[in-house]
Amino acid sequence: MVGVHPAWLPASAFRSIGARRVRVVGDGPVVATVRGEVETAVAGHGGALVDDGPVDLELVCAPDDGEADPEAFVVGRAGSTTVVRAIDGVGLLYGFHHVVRLGEAAFTGAAEDRRHAPRLPVRMLDHWDNVDVHPVMGQVERGYAGGSIFYADGAVRADLSRARAYARLLGSIGVNRVCLNNVNVHRTEARLLTDLLPDVARLAEVFRPHGIRVHLSVSFAAPMTLGGLPTADPLDPAVRDWWARTSAEVYAAIPDFGGYVVKADSEGSPGPFAYGRDHAEGANALARALAPFGGTVFWRAFVYNHRQDWRDRKTDRARAAHDHFAPLDGSFDANVVVQVKSGPVDFQVREPLSPVIAAMPRTRLAVEFQVTQEYTGQQKHVCHLVPQWHEVLGFQPWGEEGPTVADIAGGRAGAPAGGVVAVSNVGDDPFWTGHPLAQANLFGFGRLAWDDRLTPEAVLDEWIGLTFPGDPAVREALHDIMDGSWLTYERYTAPLGVGWMVNPAGHYGPSVDGYEYSPWGTYHFADRDGVGVDRTRSTGTGFTGQFPAPWRDVYESVETCPDELLLFFHHVPYDHVLHSGKTVVQHIYDSHFAGCEEVSRMVETWARLEGRVPPEVFERVTALLQEQTRCAAEWRDQVNTYFWRKSGVPDARGRTIH
Amino acid sequence: MVGVHPAWLPASAFRSIGARRVRVVGDGPVVATVRGEVETAVAGHGGALVDDGPVDLELVCAPDDGEADPEAFVVGRAGSTTVVRAIDGVGLLYGFHHVVRLGEAAFTGAAEDRRHAPRLPVRMLDHWDNVDVHPVMGQVERGYAGGSIFYADGAVRADLSRARAYARLLGSIGVNRVCLNNVNVHRTEARLLTDLLPDVARLAEVFRPHGIRVHLSVSFAAPMTLGGLPTADPLDPAVRDWWARTSAEVYAAIPDFGGYVVKADSEGSPGPFAYGRDHAEGANALARALAPFGGTVFWRAFVYNHRQDWRDRKTDRARAAHDHFAPLDGSFDANVVVQVKSGPVDFQVREPLSPVIAAMPRTRLAVEFQVTQEYTGQQKHVCHLVPQWHEVLGFQPWGEEGPTVADIAGGRAGAPAGGVVAVSNVGDDPFWTGHPLAQANLFGFGRLAWDDRLTPEAVLDEWIGLTFPGDPAVREALHDIMDGSWLTYERYTAPLGVGWMVNPAGHYGPSVDGYEYSPWGTYHFADRDGVGVDRTRSTGTGFTGQFPAPWRDVYESVETCPDELLLFFHHVPYDHVLHSGKTVVQHIYDSHFAGCEEVSRMVETWARLEGRVPPEVFERVTALLQEQTRCAAEWRDQVNTYFWRKSGVPDARGRTIH
Repeated sequence: MVGVHPAWLPASAFRSIGARRVRVVGDGPVVATVRGEVETAVAGHGGALVDDGPVDLELVCAPDDGEADPEAFVVGRAGSTTVVRAIDGVGLLYGFHHVVRLGEAAFTGAAEDRRHAPRLPVRMLDHWDNVDVHPVMGQVERGYAGGSIFYADGAVRADLSRARAYARLLGSIGVNRVCLNNVNVHRTEARLLTDLLPDVARLAEVFRPHGIRVHLSVSFAAPMTLGGLPTADPLDPAVRDWWARTSAEVYAAIPDFGGYVVKADSEGSPGPFAYGRDHAEGANALARALAPFGGTVFWRAFVYNHRQDWRDRKTDRARAAHDHFAPLDGSFDANVVVQVKSGPVDFQVREPLSPVIAAMPRTRLAVEFQVTQEYTGQQKHVCHLVPQWHEVLGFQPWGEEGPTVADIAGGRAGAPAGGVVAVSNVGDDPFWTGHPLAQANLFGFGRLAWDDRLTPEAVLDEWIGLTFPGDPAVREALHDIMDGSWLTYERYTAPLGVGWMVNPAGHYGPSVDGYEYSPWGTYHFADRDGVGVDRTRSTGTGFTGQFPAPWRDVYESVETCPDELLLFFHHVPYDHVLHSGKTVVQHIYDSHFAGCEEVSRMVETWARLEGRVPPEVFERVTALLQEQTRCAAEWRDQVNTYFWRKSGVPDARGRTIH
Repeated sequence: MVGVHPAWLPASAFRSIGARRVRVVGDGPVVATVRGEVETAVAGHGGALVDDGPVDLELVCAPDDGEADPEAFVVGRAGSTTVVRAIDGVGLLYGFHHVVRLGEAAFTGAAEDRRHAPRLPVRMLDHWDNVDVHPVMGQVERGYAGGSIFYADGAVRADLSRARAYARLLGSIGVNRVCLNNVNVHRTEARLLTDLLPDVARLAEVFRPHGIRVHLSVSFAAPMTLGGLPTADPLDPAVRDWWARTSAEVYAAIPDFGGYVVKADSEGSPGPFAYGRDHAEGANALARALAPFGGTVFWRAFVYNHRQDWRDRKTDRARAAHDHFAPLDGSFDANVVVQVKSGPVDFQVREPLSPVIAAMPRTRLAVEFQVTQEYTGQQKHVCHLVPQWHEVLGFQPWGEEGPTVADIAGGRAGAPAGGVVAVSNVGDDPFWTGHPLAQANLFGFGRLAWDDRLTPEAVLDEWIGLTFPGDPAVREALHDIMDGSWLTYERYTAPLGVGWMVNPAGHYGPSVDGYEYSPWGTYHFADRDGVGVDRTRSTGTGFTGQFPAPWRDVYESVETCPDELLLFFHHVPYDHVLHSGKTVVQHIYDSHFAGCEEVSRMVETWARLEGRVPPEVFERVTALLQEQTRCAAEWRDQVNTYFWRKSGVPDARGRTIH
């Protein structure tokens, strides 16, 4: 498409394959996609797609009694031929892109067959796109990359070429499910399930050739708002019948439809509580309508009281998901996936793990991340989030001997397999993601969802190699800028895990007290003596008790609690000494000055890339780094001034605090 | 109109006149209005409108060599006949409503002729109504009474019956100018000046029979945006020609058009600064286009830097209007009125007088108030503002021997006469003003604009007598609730004149630090030791120096500065002792508890009126008092908690601070 950045799939990425003789064996829509990729590659780079004779690369989709996973593939070398085998087109597609990423390395030396299969079966992107522009939340809720690639002018786009290019990008990194509309389902969007279904089918056709099943977010009240029933009670036979009939119609139009995503009883959305039903009863009602067709309900655990009274020190939003969901373990049908935000609150730059993830061994769980940078700089700031997700997926809730979060979600820890879900950061911006470097978060999400054991640096290295090929200086500079950018963002924003010191309107930029007296249940309790939220069992809200050992004890004690989460779990005086040896208030000053200095270094490093990256990328990133510099200084100065005014403790190094 | 509250003109208000024999003498559209009022009154109450024979009331519009003011009227008794005389229909209308307000007292005893004339020639209401619903500010910017009575669905309403009833209400209280559209002129609204002019003419026809001239807010950039010129430079001949031609067309359609209202170089609006011109050059350019037709430019002095850096302690928004305008005194054309907000900042519950008002003796000034309760409870809270305006109009900038603000604006202090302007609080709500008791603010504005020497209690008493006739218990209760309600609102909101501790999004409810790090230039600088803004000459921004003696010295000294403005002018420690004998922090606690207790008493007092006021009024006010109670408690608790956390000083009376 003219003017649209190719992201990590520029023509150059296909040079190694395109310069060779390639054979593709197999049938079906996804194999056809692979064949089309090869055709384009060889046309551009001088190779050939052949049916007979010797080849450099053979891509074979064929039955194999030893393989059960359609997403798996085997890569090996037979003589001078690299061979990729899979039992399904989607496995072959993943194998093809594996070879793309390997580049020349795929064609050198001898290599034994090696099987690759995803560690997490569900690898899903949720789009918070609205069909109609919402008066407050816009076309894409929490979207920072322009309009929707699916919708414009109140309808599904006539021209779906951007969606098609997007589907190709997602297929290349192993994403296998996409939810097409915002979890907050407004009036027009509700109708995607019924009279707008033909348009959904058009979108499903766009995603199908890339091995991706589409989902819809649905409103729990749909039997009333769309069906005209007097109730949405999940145990009401007429309600169940409505969901069954409606779902059957969806599958008649889209046989491989993935299922529903549901935000219920959450921030004002309708749900089963209105009928005295629990969330298992709610989820199962929908699940049974989907079960005959192989569909899945993704039921979000993001349920909490958003009409809290700040004067009430007992209620703790962090506790809510566990309080609501842990008791329901074992009650969910097999085709329900409970979708749990990675942290207990809401996508802050730093949170502990959501304790729900370790509390539901008989439930399929999906861990939910945000690729869209709602609280992490809104694609104006460089904030490479792959290290955060890697840390979450590798976290061991039962300590060093126990399984990781990825093991739990991947079905390797006793519980049935779920996966990972993330909110997309893509819009109709020419760079897809607003900030060109934010493409790496989308890429990295897919790669980490495929294999959580990949290191963030390795994933970033893949992305750089594909997107900015051939220049070691660019590679080095981007690692310098991006590898540590999550920690940089953490340093200049809310300190020590306390979160939230953000403008309530829009979630961008600092407002230290912005949520301090709010009904959303998000506080820091700073006074002239100290700061932090006491979530201990002994004197606080008891949230630490939702974790299994050892973390219930590690977090409980101010002595053992990790510095980076200290204020999430404890209210401490400003002169409390961290494990780092600094006082809390000096840490606040130091980290905020350091974060801004790191941004300055990003700017310098990026400036050296002029002429080494495409000029439109250079200009966009340069302009955004200017905004990041301004905003980081604003964070630094407001946070430092706030704590200086409150504590009266001067900076030990005498720097300017206003 | 069905379902619309009659405000202060129910049929009962006309009983004394309507039961009598009345003669109306004179011609013209406004005399016709008076005649129509009499006709309706006598039809409802058994009297008669007669041409001959003895009458109880004679209303005479006729030339009188001794009278020059068309708005003046004389009332007297000749035998058993009450006689009202005026030289113009509008004077007769005002005299008629004077008799309405007097009721039976107009028809008893002997009374010498007494002349009544307005003290302030300009008595204007500005509507911040948008033709199109603005995506952020809505149909009526800062409107809290529903939609616009002028516009709906992106156009001037076809049915102007509400506008007609509104014009009648305004005529009855002496308002003589109305600006029809928002000072922030958006795209559709700009076209009121050109292709939508026929609709403006329809509105002018609605207001004309009530002696009211209509105005339009215009954009300084109109020569470019509407006229297609490359510049809006006020000294450019083509620009001047465009304004001249455009104005001529307006007057061709509306011969008694009042003129323009201009918000220029203010909060992002275009203005003369872009061309290196000052505001006199800007205003005069428009004034010269209007002068041939007798039109006036109302040029707002609300010019300040709204992109301020909170780290900059030198810039002071309070100084801005004086800095910009005082040097221009004497440069404005005779048909320019400089419209100055009553305080130096922006309609806070308590501000000192704007020093501009005492600084431009050769300029026509209008003092601008807000009848719409933007910062004073948004017509959810009872906040009777007439005492505030009375205090402003009676303020003596040069001390006890000097003229008042009303003298300045009324042309009795050397400067040419201007007047008063206020932002209307009216919308298409059935009670006109959202809160039924907020009607008293609209009524009181008109009455005080006519005669600033009326006491707020007397004005309120008139309103009660007209609106809720005949029940002394209601009268007493409403005085109890409303007389002191402005001070009550002050007590539970931002303390001691510091202002602004309000939610930036929407200006309703508390957010103590909401503006503390904002570009809008509105701070309180609270730290662990003290609070307030140092605006002294000796150590602060020097704002005190913009006042003449004695106030420049009264405000400069922490010893003499009035308590209620202490934190506007001074940064003081929490243990600073006020003239009241309390420390600042104890005053904060005490006033906030007291304010909430006063709201509780309002609720009790109002509850006793069940069955004594119309049920729909009772219910609406009861519901709003519930919200006021909730919101006042929120203010109390957030402000008290904020200062308790910062100061560490406990409440001397041990009350609950969270």
